[in-house]
Amino acid sequence: MVFAHVGTLRTVAGKRDDLVALLIRRSDALDHVGCLLYEVGVNDHEPDTVYVVELWTNADAHRASLVLPEVQASIARARPLLTGELGGFDFDVVGSPLRDV
Amino acid sequence: MVFAHVGTLRTVAGKRDDLVALLIRRSDALDHVGCLLYEVGVNDHEPDTVYVVELWTNADAHRASLVLPEVQASIARARPLLTGELGGFDFDVVGSPLRDV
Repeated sequence: MVFAHVGTLRTVAGKRDDLVALLIRRSDALDHVGCLLYEVGVNDHEPDTVYVVELWTNADAHRASLVLPEVQASIARARPLLTGELGGFDFDVVGSPLRDV
Repeated sequence: MVFAHVGTLRTVAGKRDDLVALLIRRSDALDHVGCLLYEVGVNDHEPDTVYVVELWTNADAHRASLVLPEVQASIARARPLLTGELGGFDFDVVGSPLRDV
């Protein structure tokens, strides 16, 4: 079942764009481990928050991605940019009005 | 700029699957007004919550969709299934590690 992860990452003041740049670095590794969609965004009403929406082939693929060396390195680089305040939620996709199944 | 809407909809106890069925009804109208992605899902840890992730060509397209007769009818049908507790957030997509731009 397709797995969705939605997240909000609170950054240290002024570091939002640094985190965005880090998160949108081109990554073939994510493709190969079942990442179907990974959108990074901002909302000017929340100047110190970065938003992510991810779709994965399943929850296991998402979990497996977190231990990839490339992802671990990215997390390490992101850590000083973050306050530690993380939000969001996960869910299993059950359908869409844009397709029949 | 691609616009993302992420939402959580709290349902009346036991009405989650009724709301899911309503939200995943096939809709050509959404395609035509700029809906790029509309995923509906559940998380068994939250038995009375339905999750949605939507991507739109831009924020205006999302706003315009809300006044479509078909969407208004769907909202009216959904209302008795909902407690009124809505969550989530919106953001503008600025990039993805899955593509170069």
